[in-house]
Amino acid sequence: MIFDEELKRLKEKVLRMGGMVESAIKDAVHSLVERDNELAGRVIEEDHQINALDVEIDEDSIRLIALMQPKASDLRFITTAMKITTDLERMGDMAVNMAERALELNDEPILKPYIDIPKMSQIAQGMTRDALDAFVRKNKKLATDVIMRDDEVDDLKQEVLKELAFFMVQNPEAVTRAMKISFVAQYLERIADHATNIAEMVIYLVEGKIIRHTLPFENK
Amino acid sequence: MIFDEELKRLKEKVLRMGGMVESAIKDAVHSLVERDNELAGRVIEEDHQINALDVEIDEDSIRLIALMQPKASDLRFITTAMKITTDLERMGDMAVNMAERALELNDEPILKPYIDIPKMSQIAQGMTRDALDAFVRKNKKLATDVIMRDDEVDDLKQEVLKELAFFMVQNPEAVTRAMKISFVAQYLERIADHATNIAEMVIYLVEGKIIRHTLPFENK
Repeated sequence: MIFDEELKRLKEKVLRMGGMVESAIKDAVHSLVERDNELAGRVIEEDHQINALDVEIDEDSIRLIALMQPKASDLRFITTAMKITTDLERMGDMAVNMAERALELNDEPILKPYIDIPKMSQIAQGMTRDALDAFVRKNKKLATDVIMRDDEVDDLKQEVLKELAFFMVQNPEAVTRAMKISFVAQYLERIADHATNIAEMVIYLVEGKIIRHTLPFENK
Repeated sequence: MIFDEELKRLKEKVLRMGGMVESAIKDAVHSLVERDNELAGRVIEEDHQINALDVEIDEDSIRLIALMQPKASDLRFITTAMKITTDLERMGDMAVNMAERALELNDEPILKPYIDIPKMSQIAQGMTRDALDAFVRKNKKLATDVIMRDDEVDDLKQEVLKELAFFMVQNPEAVTRAMKISFVAQYLERIADHATNIAEMVIYLVEGKIIRHTLPFENK
């Protein structure tokens, strides 16, 4: 059936966009840890590809709804895809922000080795991958698991911020650099938040109330 | 026509949700500036009302599409509403975060009077109001104006962060408090970002490509 084929393509595009975002996060953190300005520049440069895919998926979705008039459960799936890509687009923006901070920090003496930030990044990347996997497979269990991991990222962020605060007290001359590192930790936290939001939407999608065949807004 | 009536109700709900978010932002910042713990508590408590409205608008939208099979331009308007409420919901979360920081900061000696934070808040509130107004009126000019104001918020945030960094260097004992204030500035920046995102969606909605009456995904 043509509709199933189109739905499959939509899923593939969402997964492709997710893969791009995951790479951007990974590369941005790598550019910081390895002080690789060229890589940071590439993350910034390539963000427009992520944005373009966001628009493309939106257009595909609208067209699919308008032309195929899908039944309620498919309709809900498609509108969820449209929301998810908005999250993914912003996760791409966070990767750009990290790459920008990397460029600034790489220009200055190193403060101390990055340990928790790569850990945060790895978890956030895994959450992103699994949240999208949960979406295309409509897998509630996997989505729930993503939400659980958000706490780990939050804990690591708290750890990073506490350490940085302590560091700033001892080394007032390093305050500006330390603040920039704290921003990176916060960008990663936001990325994990977005992945969590996607997972929540997946759960809502799977458990979704059945659209009652009544006049809209009855009893409201 | 029943469809127009339902569309009107949808707009009203989006505006109502926007009004609630605006109040939450205002109250959260007020609770910080005036050290009003009761008000901060109320912001946190009432956030579930914003979340409930998000779900309600989503359900209304899905039902409206499924039952009315609206034409392309209305369809695009409705899916945009669904995306906008996701932003509004997260803006509500930012207000909660600010209220939480307020509760923590109100417990400690005051660092210095808040000057730029209330300014940031006022601009962010206005951006929120105008972005939603632009949406329901499909007003591109107003949406563009919202986007322009985002820079003001960013500049003020930079100012706040610079001041706080300077302050931390001089007063290492105040580092933790200063960091919390920097978080509030960053929450406000994110709120303004969300308002900007809404405005961008409005522009895309108004300028939106016409859905071509071809088979979906042709030439892709």
